[in-house]
Amino acid sequence: MKFDIQPRLSRLRAAMSAAGVDAVIIPQTDPHQSEYLADHWQVRRYFSNFTGSAGDLIVTSDCALLWTDSRYFLQAADQLKGSEIILMKDGLPDTPSQAQWLCDNLRKGATVGVDTKVISAVAYEDLTHRLARKDIHVVNFDAADVWEERPELPGAPVFVHDIKYAGVGAKEKLQTALAKASDDYDADAVFISALDEIAWLLNIRSRDVKYNPVATAFLFVDREKSTLFINPAKLTDQTRDYLAREGVETAPYSGVSDFIAALPVDKRVLIETGRNARYFFDVLGKRAVAGSSVVAIDKACKNDIQIAGIHAAMERDGVALVKSFMEIERRMAVDEPTTELDVADILHHYRSEQPLYFDESFGTIAGYGPHGAIVHYEATAETSSVIKTGNLLLIDSGAQYLDGTTDITRTISIGAPTGAQRRDFTLVMKGHIALAKAIFPEGTTGHQLDALARMYLWKNGLNYLHGTGHGVGHFLGVHEGPQSIRLNHVPTPLKPGMVTSNEPGLYRENIHGIRCENLVLTVNAMTTEFGNFLRFETLTLCPFDLTLFDTSIMTDEEIDWVNNYHTLVRSRLTPLLNSAERTWLERKTQPLTK
Amino acid sequence: MKFDIQPRLSRLRAAMSAAGVDAVIIPQTDPHQSEYLADHWQVRRYFSNFTGSAGDLIVTSDCALLWTDSRYFLQAADQLKGSEIILMKDGLPDTPSQAQWLCDNLRKGATVGVDTKVISAVAYEDLTHRLARKDIHVVNFDAADVWEERPELPGAPVFVHDIKYAGVGAKEKLQTALAKASDDYDADAVFISALDEIAWLLNIRSRDVKYNPVATAFLFVDREKSTLFINPAKLTDQTRDYLAREGVETAPYSGVSDFIAALPVDKRVLIETGRNARYFFDVLGKRAVAGSSVVAIDKACKNDIQIAGIHAAMERDGVALVKSFMEIERRMAVDEPTTELDVADILHHYRSEQPLYFDESFGTIAGYGPHGAIVHYEATAETSSVIKTGNLLLIDSGAQYLDGTTDITRTISIGAPTGAQRRDFTLVMKGHIALAKAIFPEGTTGHQLDALARMYLWKNGLNYLHGTGHGVGHFLGVHEGPQSIRLNHVPTPLKPGMVTSNEPGLYRENIHGIRCENLVLTVNAMTTEFGNFLRFETLTLCPFDLTLFDTSIMTDEEIDWVNNYHTLVRSRLTPLLNSAERTWLERKTQPLTK
Repeated sequence: MKFDIQPRLSRLRAAMSAAGVDAVIIPQTDPHQSEYLADHWQVRRYFSNFTGSAGDLIVTSDCALLWTDSRYFLQAADQLKGSEIILMKDGLPDTPSQAQWLCDNLRKGATVGVDTKVISAVAYEDLTHRLARKDIHVVNFDAADVWEERPELPGAPVFVHDIKYAGVGAKEKLQTALAKASDDYDADAVFISALDEIAWLLNIRSRDVKYNPVATAFLFVDREKSTLFINPAKLTDQTRDYLAREGVETAPYSGVSDFIAALPVDKRVLIETGRNARYFFDVLGKRAVAGSSVVAIDKACKNDIQIAGIHAAMERDGVALVKSFMEIERRMAVDEPTTELDVADILHHYRSEQPLYFDESFGTIAGYGPHGAIVHYEATAETSSVIKTGNLLLIDSGAQYLDGTTDITRTISIGAPTGAQRRDFTLVMKGHIALAKAIFPEGTTGHQLDALARMYLWKNGLNYLHGTGHGVGHFLGVHEGPQSIRLNHVPTPLKPGMVTSNEPGLYRENIHGIRCENLVLTVNAMTTEFGNFLRFETLTLCPFDLTLFDTSIMTDEEIDWVNNYHTLVRSRLTPLLNSAERTWLERKTQPLTK
Repeated sequence: MKFDIQPRLSRLRAAMSAAGVDAVIIPQTDPHQSEYLADHWQVRRYFSNFTGSAGDLIVTSDCALLWTDSRYFLQAADQLKGSEIILMKDGLPDTPSQAQWLCDNLRKGATVGVDTKVISAVAYEDLTHRLARKDIHVVNFDAADVWEERPELPGAPVFVHDIKYAGVGAKEKLQTALAKASDDYDADAVFISALDEIAWLLNIRSRDVKYNPVATAFLFVDREKSTLFINPAKLTDQTRDYLAREGVETAPYSGVSDFIAALPVDKRVLIETGRNARYFFDVLGKRAVAGSSVVAIDKACKNDIQIAGIHAAMERDGVALVKSFMEIERRMAVDEPTTELDVADILHHYRSEQPLYFDESFGTIAGYGPHGAIVHYEATAETSSVIKTGNLLLIDSGAQYLDGTTDITRTISIGAPTGAQRRDFTLVMKGHIALAKAIFPEGTTGHQLDALARMYLWKNGLNYLHGTGHGVGHFLGVHEGPQSIRLNHVPTPLKPGMVTSNEPGLYRENIHGIRCENLVLTVNAMTTEFGNFLRFETLTLCPFDLTLFDTSIMTDEEIDWVNNYHTLVRSRLTPLLNSAERTWLERKTQPLTK
């Protein structure tokens, strides 16, 4: 739904003028540096109509611009249409950075406003540093002050994530985090704003953010006791008791600033610069010990109980996928009109029947034909295409189960595919397989492996601009750090227990989109005189579309990988299927031959 | 030759005690941050006997330690034997960094001495930062003050590198550098200590450093005129006139400090932090604008004239290699005793016969059997093995020609190879070929491609710990930046015109070493809707040992690559060979078949 944003921008400009601010930056974030935001924090959306998960707005007295990345170029162009907002395509050589644009377009000595309660410390530092060369200074300015009828802070109830799924108790995790903070930084305490880290540390979950089962809160971890700053209405006596048993007392969400301001002046508080707002560094002052997260790696490396849960969740997800793909095929066979939105509904329907199902892990992307080429396309009532014979259907979807989070993309052909479609698909799969089969020494980063997934596309002058793999949480964010497999340098090595996606793709504008995604677990491969080597174990259980493979451009090893994978899928899912489903899966997992 | 270093260390300790210095760091570098040092700057070698090109010495009142990397573990152990110096194996998990060791072993508030005229600004900053947490401060201290009979500064004559080889004149290069400094840093002038940058900018060469045809000098590039600080004895009237015509006046080498100290206080002087000594930042004070080199990328991207020269140099080098390998084979055939040193002599002999030959580009590594597994092995009279049937001979060598620099490694089997030798060799070659055949988008770094050269080794639990590729200068350093292909992250993208080595290897301690190295030129591959793509063109012209390929583990594409490469070698070299040599090359470039 599109709102008339002009009155909103006018009110904002009046406030800017009153505050003597020449430009305001509205970053797409919240005080917790979340990727997905509760409605309360959708300030950028409020002023722009743009709904994408990444993109910042800059407003001056006579100009408004939205920076977003290639995933959202088409969507943003559409959503900004008719407004004054200019789309700035981030990552293209001719697009200046936000700081560059401000330096080029503001007068020397100008003032830029940004909400220091949401901008991260590292982003704030970078911004002030870049603007300094034109003597532009940055002040605190909250654009949301002019937001009429702003939604309340999220208030869903908190519940405990049972240790039978989490594997390790909160008290033990808190102690480990503190010990690391003490060893690595000589810190006395740790302050955490990141909602996924808080949920993981305390084994609590909620429904505050769509698709992300987190609770809006801040956490102060200290030796004697820890304090969770959270809306009291979100807690039952039972949850409060649970937290108390784990050594955590609670305080109101809004009390966090006063609490920190009142800490002893010699207290050394570890605080991560990337996932905490600038504001908290101001309040902590000299008490702030800037450092890396003492939680991120432990959270990323799943324990044995979590891994067992993920395996079980993958089986249930696989069953739901079998039922969903059968239903889509049945509709196609009888020419029952089926749209992209229907596909999303079908997946939701079968997943929600599964035990331990909690929610989707993100909005299903079902993109038919040209829509598949819009990387983060999400069908709406206006755009939803009818699916028919002759093109590819890309389906990227996932679920939150109490025992694990799933994320899978399959690209299927509706009707018999063309040679060009099969070639494109197979080039993507060759990269997927190369990464899936990789063995690599301990210490290797995803950045170093990224080219394995791209090399066959590159050979043909093809590429995809998104990352190849992101970390995946355990009944938590479907995107989590610190590891990733991507073109950009990320220094975190892949470690045993990490769950990461393997999702190369290929997008031909106005033609079709292809993405092939499984989740993979990093495991030990072997130890030799040259050190320890790791590999990936594929977790996701769902066949790839056999009709899309062009075996003439595949090696025997690649064909073997597909066949072995399909044998695994069949053996794991068959016991959970009815007779018709078994027959279907049998047909969908026939061996490929040259 | 081993010297008794104890009296030297004793004199050093007396000087340290007199100066109130608790520990001294002696880095392996010079005021120009050179990789290869003139004898005058071999301070670390003087105090340790260790001759490797990398490794720093730390001396305290009761302890002496040498940090070096895996290339030199065996050599250092050997050269330190019998001395008090403890070998610290850099890069192993249990080895503390130098700063860590100092923090662990010095008292709080201690003093560490280092020569600020040689330590780079970036290394100095890092050191002071790391030592600050134990309140250890760093002072200027020159260990070489106690060096008796220290060699003079190098004094070889300077000569002009003809524009018919260099392609672009000094005046134009100086203007380009200044324009970049002005555009990127708003700087008025540029100060340069790096000898290769000075040689390239001014199109001058000398013989000050073994294998590196550079002249010891500093350069101050300014709008009106530039100033070269150099020992006047190195210049003839002719060279002085040439420099004057290019807008460069000369001043004594030792006058650089006074010159800089006398610059106007508002002069903005660009100075790179990694390749200039800390000392110059102290002298420049607020005039220093710290930044990246405005020379490095232009120097790395060879112009068309340089590229034509390199192609010609590769042909002459190829001819010398044919003659050398034939001579080695002849000796083996008649059982003429031949040592590793003889192999180095043979290569030197045939290369030096070639037109435009100037020098070797580094000390030839001829390692037979187990010696091949010592990555930077250089045979001495004491170690030089006799080459006989039954093992592999690794030969890494190169030359400086006026029109280009070469660097090639071949591994050959003396007698019929075993299956294990062929398998190891072929796994290395599969990586070499994967990299040689790679196509990649503009903006890709060598770090991103590195895994292509390693993936087949990794699959088998094998690896090599050195980089896969280093930049190569044009009649300049055989190692030059800024690009490289390696496990460590280096952010410089590969660009058209860059010359880089492709040299994966495999080293089995006490058994054999394998390395397969060609130089490759980055060139444009294609432009598609997905952007510009680059590829490598192989420059080096010399067959690989056909007897070492195990085609049973090679794909058809890999076999085709070898055959196409050998066809290229034959077609380019044959016109330059006599009849016997042609016959030999014909035999050595027969097509591989499955």
